[in-house]
Amino acid sequence: MIAVLKHGASPERTEHLINWLKEQNLGVHVSQGESHTVLGLIGDTANVDMEMIQSLDIVETVTRVSDPFKAVNRKFHPDDSVIRVGETAIGGGHFALIAGPCSVENEAQITYVANRVKQAGANFLRGGAFKPRTSPYDFQGLGAEGIRLLLEAKKATGLPIVTELMDIRNIDLFEEVDVIQVGARNTQNFDMLKELGKTRKPILLKRGLAGTIKELLMSAEYIMANGNENVILCERGIRTYESTYTRNTLDLSAIPVLKNLTHLPVVVDPSHGTGHTYLVEPMALAAAAAGADGLMIEVHNDPTHALCDGAQSQTPDEFDVTARKIFRIREAMQG
Amino acid sequence: MIAVLKHGASPERTEHLINWLKEQNLGVHVSQGESHTVLGLIGDTANVDMEMIQSLDIVETVTRVSDPFKAVNRKFHPDDSVIRVGETAIGGGHFALIAGPCSVENEAQITYVANRVKQAGANFLRGGAFKPRTSPYDFQGLGAEGIRLLLEAKKATGLPIVTELMDIRNIDLFEEVDVIQVGARNTQNFDMLKELGKTRKPILLKRGLAGTIKELLMSAEYIMANGNENVILCERGIRTYESTYTRNTLDLSAIPVLKNLTHLPVVVDPSHGTGHTYLVEPMALAAAAAGADGLMIEVHNDPTHALCDGAQSQTPDEFDVTARKIFRIREAMQG
Amino acid sequence: MIAVLKHGASPERTEHLINWLKEQNLGVHVSQGESHTVLGLIGDTANVDMEMIQSLDIVETVTRVSDPFKAVNRKFHPDDSVIRVGETAIGGGHFALIAGPCSVENEAQITYVANRVKQAGANFLRGGAFKPRTSPYDFQGLGAEGIRLLLEAKKATGLPIVTELMDIRNIDLFEEVDVIQVGARNTQNFDMLKELGKTRKPILLKRGLAGTIKELLMSAEYIMANGNENVILCERGIRTYESTYTRNTLDLSAIPVLKNLTHLPVVVDPSHGTGHTYLVEPMALAAAAAGADGLMIEVHNDPTHALCDGAQSQTPDEFDVTARKIFRIREAMQG
Amino acid sequence: MIAVLKHGASPERTEHLINWLKEQNLGVHVSQGESHTVLGLIGDTANVDMEMIQSLDIVETVTRVSDPFKAVNRKFHPDDSVIRVGETAIGGGHFALIAGPCSVENEAQITYVANRVKQAGANFLRGGAFKPRTSPYDFQGLGAEGIRLLLEAKKATGLPIVTELMDIRNIDLFEEVDVIQVGARNTQNFDMLKELGKTRKPILLKRGLAGTIKELLMSAEYIMANGNENVILCERGIRTYESTYTRNTLDLSAIPVLKNLTHLPVVVDPSHGTGHTYLVEPMALAAAAAGADGLMIEVHNDPTHALCDGAQSQTPDEFDVTARKIFRIREAMQG
Repeated sequence: MIAVLKHGASPERTEHLINWLKEQNLGVHVSQGESHTVLGLIGDTANVDMEMIQSLDIVETVTRVSDPFKAVNRKFHPDDSVIRVGETAIGGGHFALIAGPCSVENEAQITYVANRVKQAGANFLRGGAFKPRTSPYDFQGLGAEGIRLLLEAKKATGLPIVTELMDIRNIDLFEEVDVIQVGARNTQNFDMLKELGKTRKPILLKRGLAGTIKELLMSAEYIMANGNENVILCERGIRTYESTYTRNTLDLSAIPVLKNLTHLPVVVDPSHGTGHTYLVEPMALAAAAAGADGLMIEVHNDPTHALCDGAQSQTPDEFDVTARKIFRIREAMQG
Repeated sequence: MIAVLKHGASPERTEHLINWLKEQNLGVHVSQGESHTVLGLIGDTANVDMEMIQSLDIVETVTRVSDPFKAVNRKFHPDDSVIRVGETAIGGGHFALIAGPCSVENEAQITYVANRVKQAGANFLRGGAFKPRTSPYDFQGLGAEGIRLLLEAKKATGLPIVTELMDIRNIDLFEEVDVIQVGARNTQNFDMLKELGKTRKPILLKRGLAGTIKELLMSAEYIMANGNENVILCERGIRTYESTYTRNTLDLSAIPVLKNLTHLPVVVDPSHGTGHTYLVEPMALAAAAAGADGLMIEVHNDPTHALCDGAQSQTPDEFDVTARKIFRIREAMQG
Repeated sequence: MIAVLKHGASPERTEHLINWLKEQNLGVHVSQGESHTVLGLIGDTANVDMEMIQSLDIVETVTRVSDPFKAVNRKFHPDDSVIRVGETAIGGGHFALIAGPCSVENEAQITYVANRVKQAGANFLRGGAFKPRTSPYDFQGLGAEGIRLLLEAKKATGLPIVTELMDIRNIDLFEEVDVIQVGARNTQNFDMLKELGKTRKPILLKRGLAGTIKELLMSAEYIMANGNENVILCERGIRTYESTYTRNTLDLSAIPVLKNLTHLPVVVDPSHGTGHTYLVEPMALAAAAAGADGLMIEVHNDPTHALCDGAQSQTPDEFDVTARKIFRIREAMQG
Repeated sequence: MIAVLKHGASPERTEHLINWLKEQNLGVHVSQGESHTVLGLIGDTANVDMEMIQSLDIVETVTRVSDPFKAVNRKFHPDDSVIRVGETAIGGGHFALIAGPCSVENEAQITYVANRVKQAGANFLRGGAFKPRTSPYDFQGLGAEGIRLLLEAKKATGLPIVTELMDIRNIDLFEEVDVIQVGARNTQNFDMLKELGKTRKPILLKRGLAGTIKELLMSAEYIMANGNENVILCERGIRTYESTYTRNTLDLSAIPVLKNLTHLPVVVDPSHGTGHTYLVEPMALAAAAAGADGLMIEVHNDPTHALCDGAQSQTPDEFDVTARKIFRIREAMQG
């Protein structure tokens, strides 16, 4: 970390600051320029509160040279992490095709969809049991019953399941769930992240509604710092001023940016990321071409009757076509 | 709600849609135009999922004529809500001046600040016991001990206290807390909102980091729909592309917009809203002039040593001046 | 267009509004619902000022059923437009690979780069002669001399050239330029657009810095409404809150959205769209996979000495690799 | 400017960079830390292209210590600039109340409104002759005739006039105009700014649609660097994700931020900034309380028939009330 002091900072105050920094167990390298004094801080600066130092009236600017994240940082872990889930895996060349309905509705629906997406090449089944809805009057999901139905579909197809946890008090219901999803509204629910860090479950962590890349990594850091290394990051569209033709703006540049910064796998959700069925396929292909480690796609047997988010679901037939194209793009990239 | 069907929608599919809508207990008024059929939906449309209807391929557009929020809606409750807190109140002309440190650090600090802000005219004490921090390595607050210290300061000064709940499992610790704050990262933590709806505590609900006004109202609706009418809304700055000179963009137009839409009181947090001490006073005065029902201002006896957010805290002396100016603006507005 | 009147709108005022609308040469279909009166407007509603109608105090909401753009609208021109440029073309299956340096610096540079990108498969040469720079103290481009050098490079390679016009007073200098670029800061320079509409030159119109898709289409409409049908749209990244790791957020969903709304070709600029060399290739491949009609990529023989935007330029060797991958992705999509 | 080199940067490349920097007439102060080499650059760093240096692969980060703007910088001009316009002035305690219709429509309209706003206390008349409209089919203003009518109104009332220039080729028509407005779509029309820099006319420069504060200052710098010191900055709302209840988000924190960074006066346009009449008064009062040097408010004799932007205009009667309250707030602030 580099702190540039203001022109004219008094020697007493400068001395005082240096001593305070040393008390935080930091090495301080002072370099006296013509107009500015520059302090180089050495040691575990991830613990240093930049904003606090910035607030001091003798400080002009503070710049982090090192990243504030450690466990997730590729610098300290150059190889891709491979997250094992039963006999499948995500990351390090293992591609996850996660598909299924927004909400679990009944056994016939979830089993039918599970079979169809498996045939198309999906290796994970997704489905919502607990649903975060903006309105208290909208359908809130089947809850525990939804999880039971997902486990039935898993038994029938062998597909590992991915489903969202909204309230940490329900964690016991997720014992047989393969991958626990943390939704975009809980990306910075720090107490939940700490608790999930104490499990060894793979966690699919969605980027916040308007979350920065750094915030996503810091939230993954919360999980890893508590002991759980099985974190999968998920880009799902960010909030921008453009909302007439897309619900969110899918930020595909987040894929190469994240893969440069961290060893964790990165999957993309083009269904929530765009909010419209006709955009799911082109954005899925684009994500694959940009190097995503996986895709999460909503598939519903009857999208116009889906209890939520029908507008963005593909039919099983549409998903067949999209899956084939995804595999073709992945081949072209390796070829 | 008005649904415009696409030019060329078949009579069978139109009929099918109308029947489905009637099954949802809605009255349907059909008007056949030259190029488009328009359906007017009558009844409790707050329960209708607009996006689902929008997703149907025979539907061109859907427009809500009525608002999706009911309990918070000023149309059904024209008078300002007045939230009583002990002997003070917020809303309907009662102005709340809430002040105190970002984090509670120790008894001397919190009692000193409490006394100083009371003398300056504050009628609520704020202070963080549980702190939401982006990094797992930053100070996370004193927790239960922090609440104990706040209650000591309350005893010493008589000021009711406002402090943030981050994990619903800690609700029992908040029994003597006067106003429970829901932070910007939990605005859409729906399970927490439902639980707080079952209490009768005044809830200070912050707008999400990049939350819309509608989302803020829907989150308040979650609390009210569960039975708790004591909700105070708080504008605290939104995330925009401008982040060089301000941490967030304080959206003061939210004050008159909210006061037009809802009967609930609206307070403003210019400290988090801007992130810089020198901006707190002008934005506090602006908020008062725009008609806010209250202000929440960070005051710290020694901002440069605050364990968090020091860059945005005022000293007690600065707060004295700001408070005097706030009262003068309020007078000018009534005069 | 559908206007919903407020509950309780008086018959006189309603009558008055209907007459006014008829004076604008609109057919008005009135449908009287139980709680609301709905007016359906028929005719050339592209000329109707929605905001003006929305402002009337008897109006609850106004919704456009038809689009405000006509000439660019795919509904009235279902086939892809093919823009011919000499012996090449863009759109309708013709892919444009546009490459070259941010700024033209001297003859050796531009000719060298032109030859290299041609060998790699580019079919257009780009290069800046007039440069829009945020600071008046930054390099502003070679101007007329830059255009002369581009024409030399065209002579040497046969590649048609694309370069930016910043001031309509310089239009005469662009007589031999093949494609005139309108930069992101001039997307809504309406007087320039009108003037360019009077030429027959192909125009490469960039999306505004924080421009909506609708605004981009309306700006293209300005050009077409003045008689010039040769418009190419260009996505170049939008301004969002995320600016730590990318300069802009490249909105690749704009490709399928635009191709659904308009018949005009859509190209993507991953260099300005991301601001970092290491992101150019993955975003270029993603854009191709999402269905772009072309790509515009900065290539510089010595990026670390480029007079502007060096941070986002590829070397000719890097471009060789990227171009090969782009063609492979395009093949996979057709296969 | 401080450049931190990457750990492991070779001595040869470091030497090469230092020499290159010295060739740019910069002093270079090298300080060798344990893990990083830090270069402090001294001299006229406003001319240095940060992004170019950032792009070098041996550079970790570059931080500006000094601002990129000079002429507009308060550090070099601590006193407020006072812009004289005939017998009135803006800045340094002189408050500008600028009012008038969005568009000039006819002589009766503009003269009536001019008289009414003068009586209410306005000291400038605004009115649009050339109108930037998103659609080529919307009313584009009366042009030269509009300016003639404004000059008539000026003769009748003595109020200096403010009106927008959209095309630099029309500059001759603005000879008798008192203040030339540069609209939000032209804030970065650099050729226009240079040309206006050669005049001595007061320029009211609006912040871009989604412009940063730094960009606004750099655009003002373009005008001042070309010799014209009469620049007035105008906050007019920025584009954010919130667009349901307000057209733009009025960024009032820009007032104290700008007044800290520059000596130029800052006015606020609450009409375009919000897009709704009912928000104009509270935002005008808030802007005054935040320390604005002036306000620009749309007033129309018959808002529901305005040819543009009627939804945000006040009537003369409404403006009477608002003006009185503005003066009362200004008094309270001095009191």
